Amino acid sequence: MNRREFSLSLLLAIPGLSSLTTPAQSPLRVNGVRLNLHLKELAQFGHTVEGGTHRVAYSDADLEARQYAMKLMREAKLEVSIDAAGNIIGRRAGSDATLKPLMIGSHIDSVPQGGSYDGQVGSMGAIEVAQTLAENNVHLKHPLEVIIFQNEEGGTVGSVAIARGLTEKTLGLVSNSGKTIREGIKFIGGDPEKLSSVVRKKGDLAGYLELHIEQGGILYQEKINIGVVEGIVGVNWWEVTVEGFANHAGTTPMNQRHDALLAAAKYIDAVNRVVTSIPGRQVGTVGRIQAFPGAFNIVPGKVVTSLGLRDLDAAKVQMMFEKIQAEVRQIETATGTKFEFKQVNSSQPALTDTRFRGVIDEASKQLGLTTKLLPSGAGHDAQEIADLCPIGMIFVPSRDGISHSPREFSEAADITNGTNVLLHTLLKLDAMNLN
Amino acid sequence: MNRREFSLSLLLAIPGLSSLTTPAQSPLRVNGVRLNLHLKELAQFGHTVEGGTHRVAYSDADLEARQYAMKLMREAKLEVSIDAAGNIIGRRAGSDATLKPLMIGSHIDSVPQGGSYDGQVGSMGAIEVAQTLAENNVHLKHPLEVIIFQNEEGGTVGSVAIARGLTEKTLGLVSNSGKTIREGIKFIGGDPEKLSSVVRKKGDLAGYLELHIEQGGILYQEKINIGVVEGIVGVNWWEVTVEGFANHAGTTPMNQRHDALLAAAKYIDAVNRVVTSIPGRQVGTVGRIQAFPGAFNIVPGKVVTSLGLRDLDAAKVQMMFEKIQAEVRQIETATGTKFEFKQVNSSQPALTDTRFRGVIDEASKQLGLTTKLLPSGAGHDAQEIADLCPIGMIFVPSRDGISHSPREFSEAADITNGTNVLLHTLLKLDAMNLN
Repeated sequence: MNRREFSLSLLLAIPGLSSLTTPAQSPLRVNGVRLNLHLKELAQFGHTVEGGTHRVAYSDADLEARQYAMKLMREAKLEVSIDAAGNIIGRRAGSDATLKPLMIGSHIDSVPQGGSYDGQVGSMGAIEVAQTLAENNVHLKHPLEVIIFQNEEGGTVGSVAIARGLTEKTLGLVSNSGKTIREGIKFIGGDPEKLSSVVRKKGDLAGYLELHIEQGGILYQEKINIGVVEGIVGVNWWEVTVEGFANHAGTTPMNQRHDALLAAAKYIDAVNRVVTSIPGRQVGTVGRIQAFPGAFNIVPGKVVTSLGLRDLDAAKVQMMFEKIQAEVRQIETATGTKFEFKQVNSSQPALTDTRFRGVIDEASKQLGLTTKLLPSGAGHDAQEIADLCPIGMIFVPSRDGISHSPREFSEAADITNGTNVLLHTLLKLDAMNLN
Repeated sequence: MNRREFSLSLLLAIPGLSSLTTPAQSPLRVNGVRLNLHLKELAQFGHTVEGGTHRVAYSDADLEARQYAMKLMREAKLEVSIDAAGNIIGRRAGSDATLKPLMIGSHIDSVPQGGSYDGQVGSMGAIEVAQTLAENNVHLKHPLEVIIFQNEEGGTVGSVAIARGLTEKTLGLVSNSGKTIREGIKFIGGDPEKLSSVVRKKGDLAGYLELHIEQGGILYQEKINIGVVEGIVGVNWWEVTVEGFANHAGTTPMNQRHDALLAAAKYIDAVNRVVTSIPGRQVGTVGRIQAFPGAFNIVPGKVVTSLGLRDLDAAKVQMMFEKIQAEVRQIETATGTKFEFKQVNSSQPALTDTRFRGVIDEASKQLGLTTKLLPSGAGHDAQEIADLCPIGMIFVPSRDGISHSPREFSEAADITNGTNVLLHTLLKLDAMNLN
C-alpha cells in the first residue's frame, strides 16, 4: 500500500462520505501551469499567422506534434506505443489484474486553419492526469490507457479503427494532407496491413472519458464551469435539389416563373421555423447553396442546397424531417418547383453512461465547480468508443462558442478545472470496479 | 413617280382613309416562305446539337452569319457597308433629300448556347422588308437604313457605338469569343481607330423600328399576334453582401447563430413579396447566390447574392428598392446580420414613341392581327438608339416565353405577321414626313 492509497482509505472511512466519492478536500490537483504551458508548446506545431493551428492529420506538423505528445507521455511514466492504426497509446498498469482498462484521451489533429484547443485540451489534459498520478504515486486498480486518436477531424479515423475497423473505401480516401488514409497511417508509424490487430470487442474497455472544449456558447454565456455531456447528437445530412425552370429575368412575368432560388429561400426559412418551433436543443442548418445558371439576369432553374439535422433523439430528427417535408410540399405547389432529398450522411446519437454523468457532476461539485447537462452538437471519438464501453465527456467553456477557427479560445483556468474534473472522475470510476 | 407611289396616292385619296394610313386592303406583303427559309439558313451558322445557336459576337460563326446577311442585303438591292464599329448597314436612298433616314434592324449574334430567333427574326425581317420594297419597286421618301448591330448580347456594343461612342474600358473588355471588344471589331471588319466616325447626333435619324421575339410568355399565353412595345424597362442590378458569423453547425444553438444564409433566404422571399405586392408588370429577381464557407456542417458566415429590378418607370424601381431596404432592416435585426447593396449596373427605361405605338397598332389591325401593349423586360439596341430618335418595337410571340435557350421558338406565321407589321409601319411612318 503506498502513501496515497493509505490516505484515500483513511478519508473514505469518514462517515457521510460515500465509498464512491473522492473527498471534497482531496489535495490531489493537476498542475495547471504546466498543463497550459504544454498547450502553448503544442500550438507551435502548425501555428498560423492568424494565431490558430493548421495541423491536418498526416501533415509534418501533425507528425511533430505527435512526437511532442509522446515525449510528454514518457515523462508521465506511460509506456508509449503507436498502434497499427496510428493511434498513440500510453499505458499504465493497474493493481487489479482482473479489471479492464479505463481509457482517457482525445486528438491533436486540427481542421484546416483551425484553433489550438479542439482535441488538444483533452489530449494534454489526459497526459497531465497521468503525470499527476505518477508524481503523486497514485496507482489505479484499472489499467489506464491514455490515447491520442489519429485523424479525428477527417472522420474519427483512429477511433473507428478501434471500434469497428476501417474499410478499404476509407483507406483509399484522400485526406486534407493530400495523402490517402492508408498512406497517412504509414506516415505516422502505423501499419495498414495489421489493422485487424487494433479492433477491440465490446467489453474490452471498462470505460472511456474525454475532456473537450464545448465548441458552443452555452457554458461561456451562462458562466458555467463544466459541461456534463448527455450524449453526442446524431448527425443527418441531405443533399437537396430544387428543380424549377431557368428563364429570362427581364421578360418572364413574376406569375409565370418557376424560380428554384425563391423556392430554396422559402425552404431555408421553413427549416429554421420547424427546428426552432420545437422545444429542445436540436439544431437544423442549411450550409450549402448553389444556383444554376447563377447569373444576375436569369431566373434560377435549379438549386442544389443542403439540410443538416442533429439531435440526441433520432425520433425527433425524423419528426423534424417529416415536418420539413410537409412544408416543402406546399413550397413546391406555390413556386412550381420540385424538391429532392438525398441522404448523404447519417450517424446515430451516442448517449453517455448515466453513471458516468453522475460521477462527473459529483466530482465537479466537490471541486466547487458549477455544472450543466448538455448535448454535444459536434461529433467526437467518444461516439465511436461508445460501441465498446460506457463513455463520459467533460466540456469546458469556449469563448463566444467559437470553434474550428483561429479565434477558438478557452481560459487557462477553465482548462485546469476541466482536467481536475477528469482526474477526479477517473479516480471515482476506478473505485467503482467497472467491468 | 413609280407605279407603287401612284397606286398609294390613289388609295390615299379614297374618302374615309386618313392620309396617314396604308389601305387595309394593300396587297403589299413580305414573302413569308423566303423569310423563314432565310432564318433556317442563318441558323446553320453556329448550330448546336441541342438544336439551338451558339454564335457569340466575333466568333467564326458570327463572321460567317454576317457574310450571309450581307449577301441577302445585296440581293435586296441595299448598298452594304460595315461601319468602323463593325455594324452592318444596308442603305437605300429616299426620294426626299431633305429627310433623315428611317432605320430598321436588329442583331444576329447570340448568347452562348442560345436560340435561333432572338435578334435574328428582326434582322431577317428587316432585310425581307427591304427585299419586298425592292421587288415591288416601292420607293420611300426617307432614306432607309437596314442595320445589323454587332454584339448586342455582350452589352449592345454596336448601338452604343452609334448612340454615344464606346469607351476605352468597353474596348478592353473580353467578350464571350475570347477576343476583346477592340480585337472583335477588327475581326468583323471594323476599325477601332475610326470609331468617332460612327457616332450620330440627336436628329440624325428620323426614327428606328425593331421587330423582335417577345422573349416572354404574354403574347403566347394570351394568343395575341403582335406586341406593341411600350418601352424598354430600366435594368438595375445590385451585388448584395450579407455578413453574419460562421460557426459550427452542431454546437451553435439556434438562438446564438448569425446565419447569413437564413438572412439571405428571408431577403429573397422579401424581394418576391415586395415586387408582387404592387400592381403592374415590374419584375424583381435574385439570380445569384454564394454561401461562405459553404459546407454542410458550418453555419454560413457570409453570403453574396444579387438583386435585379426592372420597370418602365424609374420611380417605381426606386420605390421597390426602398421597400426592400425596409424589409432588410428587419431581417438584419431578426438574424443578427448586416446587408450591403452595391449597384453594379443601371440603365434608364427607354420609352417608345407614342405616335410609333399608334402606327404599329393601326398597321397590325389593318392586317387583321390582334395587338397588346406591353413592356420589353429585356434590353435591346433600340434602347440605345432612343437617345437619337423616336423608336418603336414590334414583338411576336415566343413559345412558352422561353428565350436565350435552344428551346427558343416562334411560329413561322407569327414571324411573317410581325414582318408585315414592320413593313406597313415603315410605310406609314414614311408617309408622316418624320423629321
